[in-house]
Amino acid sequence: MSETEPGAAKQRWALKIEYDGAGFVGWQRQANGLSVQEVLEAAAAKLEGAPVASIVAGRTDAGVHAAAQIAHIDLARPIAAPSLIAALNFHMQPHAVAVLQAVAVGPDFSARFSAIGRCYRYDILNRPARPALSLGRVWHVKRPLDAAAMQEAARHLLGKHDFSSFRAASCQAKSPLRTLDRLDIQRNGDILSIVAEARSFLHHQVRNMAGTLVKVGLGEWPPRRVRDILEAADRRAAGPTAPAEGLTLTAVRYSVDPFADGESGGDSSERRSASGETL
Amino acid sequence: MSETEPGAAKQRWALKIEYDGAGFVGWQRQANGLSVQEVLEAAAAKLEGAPVASIVAGRTDAGVHAAAQIAHIDLARPIAAPSLIAALNFHMQPHAVAVLQAVAVGPDFSARFSAIGRCYRYDILNRPARPALSLGRVWHVKRPLDAAAMQEAARHLLGKHDFSSFRAASCQAKSPLRTLDRLDIQRNGDILSIVAEARSFLHHQVRNMAGTLVKVGLGEWPPRRVRDILEAADRRAAGPTAPAEGLTLTAVRYSVDPFADGESGGDSSERRSASGETL
Repeated sequence: MSETEPGAAKQRWALKIEYDGAGFVGWQRQANGLSVQEVLEAAAAKLEGAPVASIVAGRTDAGVHAAAQIAHIDLARPIAAPSLIAALNFHMQPHAVAVLQAVAVGPDFSARFSAIGRCYRYDILNRPARPALSLGRVWHVKRPLDAAAMQEAARHLLGKHDFSSFRAASCQAKSPLRTLDRLDIQRNGDILSIVAEARSFLHHQVRNMAGTLVKVGLGEWPPRRVRDILEAADRRAAGPTAPAEGLTLTAVRYSVDPFADGESGGDSSERRSASGETL
Repeated sequence: MSETEPGAAKQRWALKIEYDGAGFVGWQRQANGLSVQEVLEAAAAKLEGAPVASIVAGRTDAGVHAAAQIAHIDLARPIAAPSLIAALNFHMQPHAVAVLQAVAVGPDFSARFSAIGRCYRYDILNRPARPALSLGRVWHVKRPLDAAAMQEAARHLLGKHDFSSFRAASCQAKSPLRTLDRLDIQRNGDILSIVAEARSFLHHQVRNMAGTLVKVGLGEWPPRRVRDILEAADRRAAGPTAPAEGLTLTAVRYSVDPFADGESGGDSSERRSASGETL
């Protein structure tokens, strides 16, 4: 890397990333299979000519998708945003991972610790027939779901609670307290979606809430029971963990959104080349 | 098939079918690979205990998807709609084909000849980054498309015209005259969709119109040129054939829609079992 001056300060890059979770062991590197992190870091290392570490906003589980995951990496190699995007996407082929935007940010920005909100969408295909076009992207629930009952149940989960009943045994968070800012049920044809937003979630929290809301939607549990489940603070009180393939990380929020202004090289490499070419 | 009385009149069934075109040689049976028709007919034959032939509304090409393809089959075996759907979907596993609805119709109904309209949607992923979540469902066009210019160009194609310029050499239609009822450009985030509706289309007509509209959207051709292309009545005058994977058959119209009333066993086998159980 003759262009890289030894000891020069590295540039931090915020990356917006889309991926299909199928075929990955999740975001995080693991010995038992390919992770999204490994694919991204390998591509960045090829560009940098040296190992590159990434920090991510949402460590999605195996099979979970992302429409707008955020990660950051530090690169010594000078590069324009559109070129960085193109190079990473080239090197990540043929994997179903794509960098959508890249923005040069200051060293204080952390994709993980600067994040003030995570948004997830859980999609359920609610019809008798199994999925064809939505295969691998939905939980297939054959019997009709009562969206109004699910929305009523969801209201009990809003706000700050001890979410122990919705927490995986493997969860490493220090506290089971979380503040749920949004939990909406939306129906679009055969697809029923659960939209959840919080500063952060416990491990499996969204999938465990989805499994519980489906119990309500099927009429097996009254909406009011969700309050009892919360109060029990016991994982055995809640419903099953919904399958990973229905879950998508849709957005990460920052108090100052690095992708909000026109500095991104991603939205349109043509229109924004003037700003994208300078760091 | 002890339940089937020899010589008994067969029941005609209209089927609404969803499939992912990837991995199929198209709807129609071919020697060189697996077709959707073959998957459906093999499943129906298992149920019937005898060969079953299907007639389809839209003979989609290799790689083209369907959200609501319509076909009909004739079965001697008495069966309720929800059971028919479940049996076909069971036997069609693991292929990405699903029967969504089944309705008992009269012998005069033909999925193909009773159809008075076909609707297709052509999806373009319009951003620099390659597709991850939409992989196999879109045509990836990196440079920004001018949707307004494309819509202006599309207006020239509306109505009855000689569509020879948009017709594949392999097209077997007797006449190149077609009446285009709708050609709309819609943008939803990174996805730009072309929505086309006509009584029927020539072979590759939608994909050839898409290839031409993209030329306009990229600014390579002015919208007015589409009128010249039409008048040339020469395939070489128009743009390239857009890739199959961006195309989805979204609806088939009938003057009397067999799926319009509550008789279908598909929308909800639970709620409609009373009507669905009787032929």
